[in-house]
Formats: sequence, structure tokens, C-alpha cells
Amino acid sequence: MMFDKISIIGCGLIGSSILRNINDNKIGKNVTVYDKSKNVVDIIKREKLCDNISKDIQSAVKDADLIILCVPLSSYKAILLEGKDFFKENSIITDTGSVKKEINIIFENLNLKNISWIASHPIAGTEESGPLAGFKELFRDRWTIICENKNAKKDHVEKLKKFWESIGSKVKMMDTEEHDHVLALTSHLPHVVAYNIVMTAISADDKFRESVIKYSAGGLRDFTRIAASDPIMWRDIFIDNSKNIINVLDKFSENLKDFRKAIAEKNGDKLIKFFESTKNVRKEIVKAKQEVNLPDFGRKKN
Amino acid sequence: MMFDKISIIGCGLIGSSILRNINDNKIGKNVTVYDKSKNVVDIIKREKLCDNISKDIQSAVKDADLIILCVPLSSYKAILLEGKDFFKENSIITDTGSVKKEINIIFENLNLKNISWIASHPIAGTEESGPLAGFKELFRDRWTIICENKNAKKDHVEKLKKFWESIGSKVKMMDTEEHDHVLALTSHLPHVVAYNIVMTAISADDKFRESVIKYSAGGLRDFTRIAASDPIMWRDIFIDNSKNIINVLDKFSENLKDFRKAIAEKNGDKLIKFFESTKNVRKEIVKAKQEVNLPDFGRKKN
Repeated sequence: MMFDKISIIGCGLIGSSILRNINDNKIGKNVTVYDKSKNVVDIIKREKLCDNISKDIQSAVKDADLIILCVPLSSYKAILLEGKDFFKENSIITDTGSVKKEINIIFENLNLKNISWIASHPIAGTEESGPLAGFKELFRDRWTIICENKNAKKDHVEKLKKFWESIGSKVKMMDTEEHDHVLALTSHLPHVVAYNIVMTAISADDKFRESVIKYSAGGLRDFTRIAASDPIMWRDIFIDNSKNIINVLDKFSENLKDFRKAIAEKNGDKLIKFFESTKNVRKEIVKAKQEVNLPDFGRKKN
Repeated sequence: MMFDKISIIGCGLIGSSILRNINDNKIGKNVTVYDKSKNVVDIIKREKLCDNISKDIQSAVKDADLIILCVPLSSYKAILLEGKDFFKENSIITDTGSVKKEINIIFENLNLKNISWIASHPIAGTEESGPLAGFKELFRDRWTIICENKNAKKDHVEKLKKFWESIGSKVKMMDTEEHDHVLALTSHLPHVVAYNIVMTAISADDKFRESVIKYSAGGLRDFTRIAASDPIMWRDIFIDNSKNIINVLDKFSENLKDFRKAIAEKNGDKLIKFFESTKNVRKEIVKAKQEVNLPDFGRKKN
């Protein structure tokens, strides 16, 4: 048994997927969940996802060896202030958020003694949200980035690493600066662009709205998937990682100007050069096992 | 039997998918294919996709009741000039290209007599290319847009409509102007942006290249799929539909400026408004049966 008591705060897609693993693998002797939404709590009961549902933050975190925050970034501060006098000595607090630098400041300001704050970010998810969207295999073969805070105990970091590995994830240590920059490129920029492209496609001309929906299989539908992700979560990410996102967004806009020029000038050679540079990236991603190479992208049978 | 002889010019993803349907459904008594690539011809033989492989354009189109061009837009002119003296009287020539206005001009300049040129565009595809990537179900429940040329015979248009329906497609009549504008929004703009985002992500900072590949599951990988599509095909699309693409690209850039401002100002309310406007589009697309609503997008089992 890795932990006597694990406390999961927030039971949406990520929280419920962790829960499904703990129930099954017996990683924790006891596991409790807290979610502020009555609707979520009802689903947890109905689906029998967890026997032990806490009524408040205090009872959720009390006696817990491992506390995992699976809530939007903007909720961290209030939760930590509510729970901080109840944290068990020598416990580990981690999270699953997509931006790290800003939340580190919250933790440092709390000045917790004898508690290891170690940020985690499992890079896994779908466009669905809520406890029904979670599934056990979500973390399998995906990466979880751990950003070690200087005050965390070494054996706690090792223990948390083993925790993520035990639910199928691969683990990479990274400092917060690098994390926030890399994620701006691989996740936050794609989301900004996806939201924007869907917005452009549907609002460009209302006359064509129906046609745009109907003929979306030519590319647009893939962007609507990304653009259907949880609004609160993404608002918080864009706010917390604003600086890095603006930075990569400006690079994107610069590149787009070059691309636009090649299209406007009908410069075939330049266009081919652009394409060749991007074609191999997918092969590298498939090779790195971060994608499956289905020719139909899971649609053939439908 | 709908046709005595069908001629498929170009046997990549689209051409070979049509071929797989004709062999099976007995839509044509005879079917011949022509492809200029020796490699493609070898695959067709090896996979026994077609018994009748034409050695040149002339013998491919001779006696054909239905000629289907499944080649990049830039190849049309040379193929038509080679074949035009061999077209059978009263035959139908169609295509599968993604832009319509420019190729219409080529056909009108040819001044073909007693032949119906009727452009088709099956909105179906994957990021794969070549004859091995084709499959029979590619067109099932997808839309094929037919752009009727004024000189085409009405009964020929009806016949072509039935042809696409017989291989599983739904058919929509549209004029070339609307086609090229709607496709610029639903397909060409998403591709421009996907190419550009992948290029930005991998070239922004070589130091992070490995990390960008590794952590691509957070959004980027979905764009690399689109950006892995056939370079020649997309070069031709961007050139032929240059004007419409520039038009929607400029709208996209205008919207992106607003979005950038909201992120820079950390304006949460404005961000939420953006998200809400795009979230429902996906529901509409699923409802229109142009997407399957898999929470894991076909990846759960892998």
C-alpha cells in the first residue's frame, strides 16, 4: 500500500480517472473525494465510484497522506486556505493543472511547514468533462510532468513519481519555466487557434453557417473537438500562462504572414517547403508513441 | 449496370477508394485505371485492385462513359489535352478536386462538344495518401458536392448524382462560387492554420524540439495529422483558391487579435464568451453526423 489515505479534490474527467485507478489498483488504503458540485457528487454515488465522499475540504484533507487537486487553477487558492490548518504533517500535496509558475507563488505564500508541495501535470485528456467522461486508461503511456518545489522532500518526490507510474503514466521532471513554455507551444497555442478558427468559420458569414457545419469533415471538425474543451479550465490556463502564450502567439502570427504571402503570390515552391517541414513531425510523434497512426482516425467503422 | 466503362485517372487515396466500390458494387461493367506512377501501378497489380490498367491517358479514356479525375489540380490541364481527342461522345467527365472555379475555366477553354463536364467534390479523406490508404467506406455518410456546368446534360447530372449515392455518399448541388468559399472556411483555412501551428511549435526554439514532440498529446498532435496531408494536393488547392483563402485568413487574423487582447489583459469574461460560442458548434457537427462523438477520439484502446 503506497498511501494510507488519498484525497481527491475535484472529481471531473481527471479526478475521476485517477479515482478509477486507485479503486482498482489498491494504491491507497482509503480514498476520499470532495467536489463542490452536487451534480458531480450525485454521479459519484450513482456510479459507485467512491464510498467515501467528503462534505467539505477540511474533512477531505484531514489525515490524508496524498492530496491531489483536480480543479481549475482559479480554485486552488480558496481550497488551500480552507484546508491549510487541517493538512497532515509529512503529507504530499500535488495537482493536475496545466500551468505551474503562478500556482507555485500561491503555495510559497502559504508557507506550509513539513508538507511537500510537488506540482504534477498529467498530459492526458479528451474534450469531454465531468466524472462520466473519465476512464481508467486515460494516463496509460502518457507523460506526467512533475515540477519539484525546492522545499519538497526527496523521498516524497520519489513516492509521487511511483504513484503516477502505478496508474500507467511515464514521468518527466521539469522546472516550472520550461513546463509553462513547452505547454504554451504544445497545448495552449493549439487551443487558442482552434477556438479562433471555429469562431471564424461560423461567424464569417451567417448565410453559410449551415454549409459550414455540413461540410466540416474537410478539416474543421478536428478543431471543433479541441474547441469543445471545458471553458473554465481554459480560461484559467490562458490567464495563468498569459505571458508565454502571447509570446508563442506572436511567433505564430509572424509565420502566418509568410504563409499568407506565399498563398497570395501563388508561390508553389515556398508552399511545398512549408509542408515538407511539418510532414515529418507527425511521424516523430507516432514514433514517440503519443499518437496512434490510424488512417481514419477512429472513424472508419462509423 | 450504370456505366459500360468507367475510367479512373489517378489511383491514390480517393481514386483507389472509388475503385474498391466499383469492383464490388458492379456499378460499371468495365473499369480501367491510369496512374502515371509506376509505384502506384505496381501496388494496384499486387493488391489486385483492378485487372485493367491503362498504359496511357488515351486508352484509359477511350470508350469510357464516365471519366473520373482523381489527380492534383495542377495535372488536369495536361491530362485533358492528352485525352480530349479520344473522349467518347455523350460521356461524362467528373473529378474529385477541392477547388472548382479555376478548373472550370480549363474545361471551358477546351470547348468540348457533346460531352458533359460536371465537377464533383467528395468531402472525405484522411491524412494518408496513395492506393494502400484507400478504403471502401471512405464516402459513406459523407457529402459530395456537385457543381453543375451549364453545358452539362440534365440526365448526365442525375446519373452522376446516382453514381455518388451508390458508393455511399450524400449529394449536394452547389455553384462553384459558394463551393470555393465554403471550402475555404471548412477545409482550406484549417489546413493553413494547422501547417502554421506545427511549424511554429517545432521551430520556435530548437532547444525544446524534443519536448514538443514528447508532450504533443495536449493538443498539437491533432494538428500534425492535418498537416501531414499530401503536399502536392495542398499546394494546388492553396494556389487555385488563393483569393478565397486570403479572404478568410484575414478574418481569422482579425479575430485572433481580439483573442490575443483578451489573453494579454487576462479578461476572463471575454474569454468565456469566446469559448461558449464555439462549444456548441461541435454538438451541431455531431448532430449533422459529420463526426462521431468518441470521448477518446479512437485512442482509448491503444
